[in-house]
Amino acid sequence: MPMTPGAACPTPKTDQSTVLLGHGGGGALMHRLIDQCFLAAFGAPDLAERHDGAVLDLGGARLAFTTDSYVVHPLFFPGGDIGTLAVNGTVNDLAMCGARPRALSAAFILEEGLPLETLTRVVASMRAAADAAGVQIVTGDTKVVDRGRGDGLFVTTAGVGLLEHPATLAPGQIRPGDAILVNGDLGRHGIAVMAVREGLAFDGPIASDCAPLADLILELLAEGIALHCARDLTRGGLTSALVELATASRGHFQVAERDVPVSEIVQGACEILGLDPFSVACEGRMVLFVKSSDAPRALALLAAHPHGQGAAVIGRVTARWPAGTVTVTSPIGTDRVLEMLSGEQLPRIC
Amino acid sequence: MPMTPGAACPTPKTDQSTVLLGHGGGGALMHRLIDQCFLAAFGAPDLAERHDGAVLDLGGARLAFTTDSYVVHPLFFPGGDIGTLAVNGTVNDLAMCGARPRALSAAFILEEGLPLETLTRVVASMRAAADAAGVQIVTGDTKVVDRGRGDGLFVTTAGVGLLEHPATLAPGQIRPGDAILVNGDLGRHGIAVMAVREGLAFDGPIASDCAPLADLILELLAEGIALHCARDLTRGGLTSALVELATASRGHFQVAERDVPVSEIVQGACEILGLDPFSVACEGRMVLFVKSSDAPRALALLAAHPHGQGAAVIGRVTARWPAGTVTVTSPIGTDRVLEMLSGEQLPRIC
Repeated sequence: MPMTPGAACPTPKTDQSTVLLGHGGGGALMHRLIDQCFLAAFGAPDLAERHDGAVLDLGGARLAFTTDSYVVHPLFFPGGDIGTLAVNGTVNDLAMCGARPRALSAAFILEEGLPLETLTRVVASMRAAADAAGVQIVTGDTKVVDRGRGDGLFVTTAGVGLLEHPATLAPGQIRPGDAILVNGDLGRHGIAVMAVREGLAFDGPIASDCAPLADLILELLAEGIALHCARDLTRGGLTSALVELATASRGHFQVAERDVPVSEIVQGACEILGLDPFSVACEGRMVLFVKSSDAPRALALLAAHPHGQGAAVIGRVTARWPAGTVTVTSPIGTDRVLEMLSGEQLPRIC
Repeated sequence: MPMTPGAACPTPKTDQSTVLLGHGGGGALMHRLIDQCFLAAFGAPDLAERHDGAVLDLGGARLAFTTDSYVVHPLFFPGGDIGTLAVNGTVNDLAMCGARPRALSAAFILEEGLPLETLTRVVASMRAAADAAGVQIVTGDTKVVDRGRGDGLFVTTAGVGLLEHPATLAPGQIRPGDAILVNGDLGRHGIAVMAVREGLAFDGPIASDCAPLADLILELLAEGIALHCARDLTRGGLTSALVELATASRGHFQVAERDVPVSEIVQGACEILGLDPFSVACEGRMVLFVKSSDAPRALALLAAHPHGQGAAVIGRVTARWPAGTVTVTSPIGTDRVLEMLSGEQLPRIC
């Protein structure tokens, strides 16, 4: 379509002066906000690491500390609700630091008019998820905002975990030759939330993959697997995780598209909705970087666990090509460079 | 006014099935929600202590862990903004556990359309407040909700602190004979927010008392003061703090109204607005329970500090009267039993 003088440019506006939904999407817009606003002001070294949490030495103990707010819409979806998400999300962020989750906080922002029965259900889910993950909710807070100034219920959890192993899991530990693994098929969480939000029916039931991943990580470490880094595949999915980690580690990742597990139902839903399954959020999936010689054992350990049954090796870290990039080889053998989405393909997914 | 059959009862409804603004007010409604919803589900011993944070033994270290969400309206007010509040509030909750604040997290829930300049100002305030309190913001999160589903900006901070002293500060440590102190005059924060929110002008400028209190607590402990318990006077003000602590400690507190410092401007504003200065929120004030013989030294130490200049002894813990109650003696010598407000006198004050 020819552009007439003065017509709006169809490319995304990047010189924004207000917050967009895309700023919360886990893509390039969010990273720019983190760089230009939060890192510029706070500038703590742990924050600059852009990992899922900070590692602190306190009183002789090595601790992980992390937080996330949850604004998922709707509050309940197949396979979970905002409460299970809030517990598992923070448990998983601690796990990605290599820590055993020990204590969680829970802060609630309630909108006037929220049925107390809804709050009670969410809180019961949080307790069940905490029990399943072996962690206690030890402190909390409640605020109420006037009707129309919130959206039912937002939860913010923070977590403290203990690093019991000398291993450091961080982007800087990724080495050429490392095998890249995932613990299961991608995209179930995003599609499950999308389906209930939009009232869509697919060829079969689809439930969120929301699950606690700490046991998996701790088991790999306990078994002596040389695990260098792990990242859960939340907002922005596998795409954001790989691009972030390639950038942070200055590595080049080679991924084989055919080896990345995506269920038929998620694949079909993504085709209908025009989504890229690599970029759809999961809440119980992670990417792991393991020393190549340990990869078969790591895969077997993952696959033996209920939350790792669909584990797969999806690629490797190489010493070639421009550092800080991810190349995906298609089933017909062509290569493309994986790029982070600009903004948001599925808003309020967590 | 005579009641006609079927007319609505003017007493507060307590059998609510939905969330009310009063559930966030720090009064009796909030306590019922905590009991019936959060404690019933989570049931952790630290939570049941109802202190400002939890104390954890992790890897040989004694840690305090706490969280609070901030929904203050408006975002900016004389003497601070939502950012200073979020940092000082969490710093103070750690301090009330006797801990040295070491690391904070910050999770933002942004409403689509928020000017980035507003976010930048808040984040700069948080950095300045963190520097002033000697603590680092080490990890964080950002979520965005659609326009009309939030209110500009909510912040949730969590904090981790280290207990460097063997002292335990908790309601259970309060003893008959203890002196009850405050570190300054009451109610400036609540009145400052109210004034800007309602466009009120008073006889002079009034700024929030928002301040970090950890240095004060740590100095008292370092000087060997037998400090048994401390509680910051946030939602519900002095009233909620005293009633909560009397209930938790099964003590009887005797307070002399004339000894409780309230500035003329706050007193005047409260009279105009129909507020009780004892129940107005502060963000840089606390009540302290100190062994009687240490009270003069504690008072001198507090008064020598910029955030304790208006410190005063306001009462004492006695062994008489019904346990778990607070008696206030008026300037003319009559006694009344202090009762927690039911709900909310100043919504969204923090």
